[in-house]
Amino acid sequence: MYRHTKSLQFQVKPERPDALFAAKLQELVGGQFGEMTVMMQYLWQGWNCRIPGKYKDMILDIGTEEIGHVEMLVTMMARLLEGAPSETQAQAAAANPALAAVLGGQNVQHAIVTGGAAMPTNSQGVPWNGGYIVASGNLLADFRSNVAAEAQSRLQTARVYNMTDDPGVKETLQFNLARDTYHQQQWLLGIEQLIEDGFTDGLEDSHKDEEKTEHARTFYSFTEGSRAGEGRWAQGNTLIGNEELVFAEGVPLTDDVNQVPPPDPLLFSTYDGSMGPGTPGNAGGAFKQGAENLLHKAKEALTGDDK
Amino acid sequence: MYRHTKSLQFQVKPERPDALFAAKLQELVGGQFGEMTVMMQYLWQGWNCRIPGKYKDMILDIGTEEIGHVEMLVTMMARLLEGAPSETQAQAAAANPALAAVLGGQNVQHAIVTGGAAMPTNSQGVPWNGGYIVASGNLLADFRSNVAAEAQSRLQTARVYNMTDDPGVKETLQFNLARDTYHQQQWLLGIEQLIEDGFTDGLEDSHKDEEKTEHARTFYSFTEGSRAGEGRWAQGNTLIGNEELVFAEGVPLTDDVNQVPPPDPLLFSTYDGSMGPGTPGNAGGAFKQGAENLLHKAKEALTGDDK
Amino acid sequence: MYRHTKSLQFQVKPERPDALFAAKLQELVGGQFGEMTVMMQYLWQGWNCRIPGKYKDMILDIGTEEIGHVEMLVTMMARLLEGAPSETQAQAAAANPALAAVLGGQNVQHAIVTGGAAMPTNSQGVPWNGGYIVASGNLLADFRSNVAAEAQSRLQTARVYNMTDDPGVKETLQFNLARDTYHQQQWLLGIEQLIEDGFTDGLEDSHKDEEKTEHARTFYSFTEGSRAGEGRWAQGNTLIGNEELVFAEGVPLTDDVNQVPPPDPLLFSTYDGSMGPGTPGNAGGAFKQGAENLLHKAKEALTGDDK
Amino acid sequence: MYRHTKSLQFQVKPERPDALFAAKLQELVGGQFGEMTVMMQYLWQGWNCRIPGKYKDMILDIGTEEIGHVEMLVTMMARLLEGAPSETQAQAAAANPALAAVLGGQNVQHAIVTGGAAMPTNSQGVPWNGGYIVASGNLLADFRSNVAAEAQSRLQTARVYNMTDDPGVKETLQFNLARDTYHQQQWLLGIEQLIEDGFTDGLEDSHKDEEKTEHARTFYSFTEGSRAGEGRWAQGNTLIGNEELVFAEGVPLTDDVNQVPPPDPLLFSTYDGSMGPGTPGNAGGAFKQGAENLLHKAKEALTGDDK
Amino acid sequence: MYRHTKSLQFQVKPERPDALFAAKLQELVGGQFGEMTVMMQYLWQGWNCRIPGKYKDMILDIGTEEIGHVEMLVTMMARLLEGAPSETQAQAAAANPALAAVLGGQNVQHAIVTGGAAMPTNSQGVPWNGGYIVASGNLLADFRSNVAAEAQSRLQTARVYNMTDDPGVKETLQFNLARDTYHQQQWLLGIEQLIEDGFTDGLEDSHKDEEKTEHARTFYSFTEGSRAGEGRWAQGNTLIGNEELVFAEGVPLTDDVNQVPPPDPLLFSTYDGSMGPGTPGNAGGAFKQGAENLLHKAKEALTGDDK
Amino acid sequence: MYRHTKSLQFQVKPERPDALFAAKLQELVGGQFGEMTVMMQYLWQGWNCRIPGKYKDMILDIGTEEIGHVEMLVTMMARLLEGAPSETQAQAAAANPALAAVLGGQNVQHAIVTGGAAMPTNSQGVPWNGGYIVASGNLLADFRSNVAAEAQSRLQTARVYNMTDDPGVKETLQFNLARDTYHQQQWLLGIEQLIEDGFTDGLEDSHKDEEKTEHARTFYSFTEGSRAGEGRWAQGNTLIGNEELVFAEGVPLTDDVNQVPPPDPLLFSTYDGSMGPGTPGNAGGAFKQGAENLLHKAKEALTGDDK
Repeated sequence: MYRHTKSLQFQVKPERPDALFAAKLQELVGGQFGEMTVMMQYLWQGWNCRIPGKYKDMILDIGTEEIGHVEMLVTMMARLLEGAPSETQAQAAAANPALAAVLGGQNVQHAIVTGGAAMPTNSQGVPWNGGYIVASGNLLADFRSNVAAEAQSRLQTARVYNMTDDPGVKETLQFNLARDTYHQQQWLLGIEQLIEDGFTDGLEDSHKDEEKTEHARTFYSFTEGSRAGEGRWAQGNTLIGNEELVFAEGVPLTDDVNQVPPPDPLLFSTYDGSMGPGTPGNAGGAFKQGAENLLHKAKEALTGDDK
Repeated sequence: MYRHTKSLQFQVKPERPDALFAAKLQELVGGQFGEMTVMMQYLWQGWNCRIPGKYKDMILDIGTEEIGHVEMLVTMMARLLEGAPSETQAQAAAANPALAAVLGGQNVQHAIVTGGAAMPTNSQGVPWNGGYIVASGNLLADFRSNVAAEAQSRLQTARVYNMTDDPGVKETLQFNLARDTYHQQQWLLGIEQLIEDGFTDGLEDSHKDEEKTEHARTFYSFTEGSRAGEGRWAQGNTLIGNEELVFAEGVPLTDDVNQVPPPDPLLFSTYDGSMGPGTPGNAGGAFKQGAENLLHKAKEALTGDDK
Repeated sequence: MYRHTKSLQFQVKPERPDALFAAKLQELVGGQFGEMTVMMQYLWQGWNCRIPGKYKDMILDIGTEEIGHVEMLVTMMARLLEGAPSETQAQAAAANPALAAVLGGQNVQHAIVTGGAAMPTNSQGVPWNGGYIVASGNLLADFRSNVAAEAQSRLQTARVYNMTDDPGVKETLQFNLARDTYHQQQWLLGIEQLIEDGFTDGLEDSHKDEEKTEHARTFYSFTEGSRAGEGRWAQGNTLIGNEELVFAEGVPLTDDVNQVPPPDPLLFSTYDGSMGPGTPGNAGGAFKQGAENLLHKAKEALTGDDK
Repeated sequence: MYRHTKSLQFQVKPERPDALFAAKLQELVGGQFGEMTVMMQYLWQGWNCRIPGKYKDMILDIGTEEIGHVEMLVTMMARLLEGAPSETQAQAAAANPALAAVLGGQNVQHAIVTGGAAMPTNSQGVPWNGGYIVASGNLLADFRSNVAAEAQSRLQTARVYNMTDDPGVKETLQFNLARDTYHQQQWLLGIEQLIEDGFTDGLEDSHKDEEKTEHARTFYSFTEGSRAGEGRWAQGNTLIGNEELVFAEGVPLTDDVNQVPPPDPLLFSTYDGSMGPGTPGNAGGAFKQGAENLLHKAKEALTGDDK
Repeated sequence: MYRHTKSLQFQVKPERPDALFAAKLQELVGGQFGEMTVMMQYLWQGWNCRIPGKYKDMILDIGTEEIGHVEMLVTMMARLLEGAPSETQAQAAAANPALAAVLGGQNVQHAIVTGGAAMPTNSQGVPWNGGYIVASGNLLADFRSNVAAEAQSRLQTARVYNMTDDPGVKETLQFNLARDTYHQQQWLLGIEQLIEDGFTDGLEDSHKDEEKTEHARTFYSFTEGSRAGEGRWAQGNTLIGNEELVFAEGVPLTDDVNQVPPPDPLLFSTYDGSMGPGTPGNAGGAFKQGAENLLHKAKEALTGDDK
Repeated sequence: MYRHTKSLQFQVKPERPDALFAAKLQELVGGQFGEMTVMMQYLWQGWNCRIPGKYKDMILDIGTEEIGHVEMLVTMMARLLEGAPSETQAQAAAANPALAAVLGGQNVQHAIVTGGAAMPTNSQGVPWNGGYIVASGNLLADFRSNVAAEAQSRLQTARVYNMTDDPGVKETLQFNLARDTYHQQQWLLGIEQLIEDGFTDGLEDSHKDEEKTEHARTFYSFTEGSRAGEGRWAQGNTLIGNEELVFAEGVPLTDDVNQVPPPDPLLFSTYDGSMGPGTPGNAGGAFKQGAENLLHKAKEALTGDDK
């Protein structure tokens, strides 16, 4: 359950409105790595975390902080959009080149749809969507995703920071940069903790015994003259298992060619008959087999021979 | 430029068709972390890599390998879909419970849209989209994203591996598991190489001097009774700067409340006047200011005083 | 079945082309509350209306009118886009600030994709999609959605109206504003009619007896110092049942905490074992139970004891 | 800023797992009118509300409650998915018809992507997206949308309620039904309050004087034999202005036909020349005009004649 | 403007409900090549057609017919969904394998969202979207798209036709197959007419003189051992210009390698300096140049030397 | 399997950066008919082609060429974006109208998200998605789609060609225009080859005997005063079957009206009872029938009478 406080976590006080900058700021609100993504991603991971205690609490703590970060940026957007042009524009643009840029570059949904406020979209107007969220139940995999998300988020914030000279906006972004710095470390340290607590096996060792290990230590190159062999990824030992890394040219490891079977004639796919007749996906054919199965199962059940 | 070989990189030989499994396999083809994603992500990162040589070549080598992995899975799907039911079904389902499951769980686009072949979608039929790709130009940020992508991909492959007992399918997935294991390491080793080559400053140090450093080492907790303070992320020193980590209750760090300004009256937003009149986004008002700007700029240009 | 008339329902005669305004007008064509939405929403509701006569006819009448409204706006767009810049632009923009605004703010798909015509997208280029449509089969719920759609549509039209001073465009929008005013009332009056005809029970009374009525009259507040208790929604009596409304602080109404069960080990989710072993989602385990079920059912069927 | 409590608002205790029901429940989590929509919609409306006090507090109170409702359903989903089949299925389905239904109807992302937990998608696997949110800044328009959202939400909950007989699930849904009943009233009462406080003019009266009033009171019928004239929407007086409603056949109100202008030749649209040559969108032509504009503006600015 | 008739164009009378078939039929309603696509595509092309008379009328005639086809299929869906299971299912599925298939394979939105009616989505639940529409203004390009759309649509209808044995459904689909056959021809004949009327230059000859003609008649092969040279596309003469077709191995036609320039340092992209310093995208630098431009333009304008 | 060559297929050497043009070029990269679409469409069709030899090889040859075309455009984009504005802009725009256009019209994701490189989106920022791909298994249907795709692609390229005067960019586009010209012919000649090889029956003749042939040769007009009868599509003989084409007024061909059945009461759809009680979708009712089915099947299976 959640509770709300009217005060913001940190101040969001632009010195002056700037509709053009607000259009860019949408990327940090509703983009692939905007605040909506990390908010929903951490809440979702936390709600589904299977370990009560420090892990679940930590994830939900940061998820809850991020709700407040969306609130901060949305509030800042409404302030940046104060008095954005909402009327006829041709004459004004003719006289004022700076205004021309604003008119051309502003996000018109900020006027038409929200009445001077943020949209739940990225900087191109694409609605935020749940497909951005990563929450797999495996904490090592997810913490790696979180490290990446914070890195991309901090990078984008640093780029956007260059696009304003409003001291009030910069003040807020300096806070956001710091939180991104901390949060990157938080997840990196979370991975350290997972290792210390022995919770990494699920990812690295899942079906470890069955994977084709000779392909787990080889860099295959598919480019003539590739210099990729000069990197650490092709020299020295593997991180898992401590085996020697191999650099090899990428070649087919099989004589299987990319041929697909003859089609079911009822699907009307084009086919020359060269591989024999297609297999009809005949549910009627399955009918007979089904009855036989039923009989077999019934006999098993009646005789107790359910192997 | 690219070239194609008819042989597959590794064999994809299911022993028998299995339409229900094919429906699940779509997640590994066109899902958020399916082969289409890593193929496009690595190609995109490689094409835009600014460092000729081992980095650019490595990224494009793996991107090229991944084109072949999409080819492998798409080929396997057509084989798994051979003879999938395409006719009337009620009678057959009545007799054959296993068929009922197939009829209920198969992806009907495999029959109606592709004629017995894979779709460029995930396991729910959602089309793959470019919003899954991460390619920022910053290699540290992107390699972190790639580590995460391979971790999620390997985890999903391991889960799907449990859902079949077809030895031919398992053989291929054992290869894929191994490549995911290697590729995870490849990106982790790539990060080691970036550190060794001194290419990590761009991310970690962007605007380092301007961020609010006191917030770059503090875990804020927003949950009563949170045990998050017990983790490494709240104890010991930071990874960057080696400062002591702080665990603190999350409180507002400002007296700024979530109030937004009075609206432009022409936007017809609801407002009670309590904060004074709204600022009209009057492009006409900007007109006068624009002319003054123009005059000022022209004077500057004519006099050479362009500061 | 439908028939077409070449004449438009109302004139759409801009006095001059205006590519920048055309870009904004896309919101009224293909936005969440644009003409495509109401056209498809009303047609869909009408086709599925279960009451022959005045309701079904009314809904389909307005749906058919809206096809003509899409036609009107699409036609106006092609006229607004006449002679929009389609050539090289750098020099022209250097000389003409108003043109710079157009070049910056125009929708380039209007040139590249449609050859000077409207797109089936909103003002940000996001394609219209069927997810905007509301059609539930329950007329009270749907008429409420329609009232809301017309309100949002009229509001957006009123905002866009401020963004042009072309008398021909304004003439058309004055017609559209009037239709939106009427259509809002049409749905409000439709709700009156539903009440009069006794068709509202389906919504308000569905499972009325089973809902937890003590929670059907309480405003829970989750904000310290909330003044929400001052409103009508927290004072006086309910509209349904005429019970006294309650204002209460939001507190957990249960001792159930947000804990989730131990995971199936085959899913490789991270888990510390603190809640005991996870339940394997073992289809093999289900096998034995299934055979027993089959036996039981077969016996029931044979003995006629099918309760 | 937000804070989190580990206790849920209301209990979510299914008596037994049910993967098939979990697949349906996704609609109430991530569908068009699921809990994610109302949570984000109310938070967004509240953050952007321009009236400090009871309105802003009320909207944010309910938005905060809804975060907890998402948490409740996500938690319930993980419990419903405990032990869902994650292994090979053909044999099991052959023996157990009920399992066949589960295998066919379960959401495979629940196993492959989340490891036994909810997805941020609807019941078809379509990711939740920000395009579902309505937040216009006009409270009357938005409260109408909220009434509609709660009506659709309650209707869907009532339908889903019929699809389970698990007493624990029903208990939770009985709470949800009650909250939907209250929330519908909350927004209806909010509209009463807006009327009492005089805050409805912005919507109903925006550009009231300019709309074509004769079209604001007429029902146009476009169907032969339509019985729509029998309804209240075509009889009696209007709600706004108290004028007599008119029922009329829909006819063209103009001689304007759906003709579009000749195309810019550089766009290569097909055209027979019958309307004369197309207007080239020649930015070069704009160049000369731009220079003249510049001169004119500069003269105005220098002479102070900026009208 | 449009008018509606209550009678359908052709009957849609299933003999019995079939929820599983209704789920498949969604592909023909709201899929990439479903009726919604051709309806909207033809209306859009017709509204924007620049040639009054037979072309514009023909396109709008078929577009109007297709509105009625959506109506037909939506009506049929509601009939197919009569009495679809809406209650608890575990027990029933245990006893009835055919029902298990239905329960697993039915589209649950048909119950939860629409109350027993069609959705505006494809067979996987993906909402129809405007991105399916093709309408370029060039009739040859668009008629080719229309031929393709009708071919795909007829193919899908033929596949779905195999999936039912309900005589009433087959009757309707026999009508639809025939219309698809006619409509394919309609567009092929439309292309004949375009050729006869001389309206194909816009597409084939656009910038004909400037294209690199040596590359307009060569098949490049990128596969070792490709047998593509055996086809008509690599032998004989071109259709346009009647030149000899060439079969050639695909090789780089340039020494340009895929290198990208050094990055703007303010974008924090990873770079080793090997290509010299990056070009800063310094708007400040542009400032000085801008003032010089202004001065230059003003002088030109004042002196009349506007070259 | 694929291999990569560092050299591009053709040079991509803009003479100067041009961020505004780069924004437009996105349409040719990630739009509905951009290079990503044809690349993925041809690879997908080729992988699933059922005819080994010249067809499969040809399709994969062109698919492989198109990977290189995406690479070319993405590389060109990074060069066009060199030094694009990334800093504060208000002052610069005030002085430089051309810059104002760039600032307004540039794609801000080119700076914020990619650090000066292409996005996998169209010109409006909508991510490329798999829903653009057409691959049905029927080569005639797919080659028609490919003809259309190349026609739309060449048309868009020709339009974009007008929007630049950079000789380096034009050089590349002249190559692309030529390839589009060739590829159009390639697919048209592919259709000739399919006809010659007798591979067209699957499409045109699927269920030919069952379609309602009287509707396969009639143009129905739904517009008063339609002149559509003047075209070839309504005169002369059909292409298939050589029957006389008919021009007829569109009228209902049935007395079936658009009525839908009474709803299942448990779905709470609005209904007046006029068509009798609705059919409950009662799974319980199915239970009894299911047991009877089971018994019947078991008897059949035991007695061997499984017809």
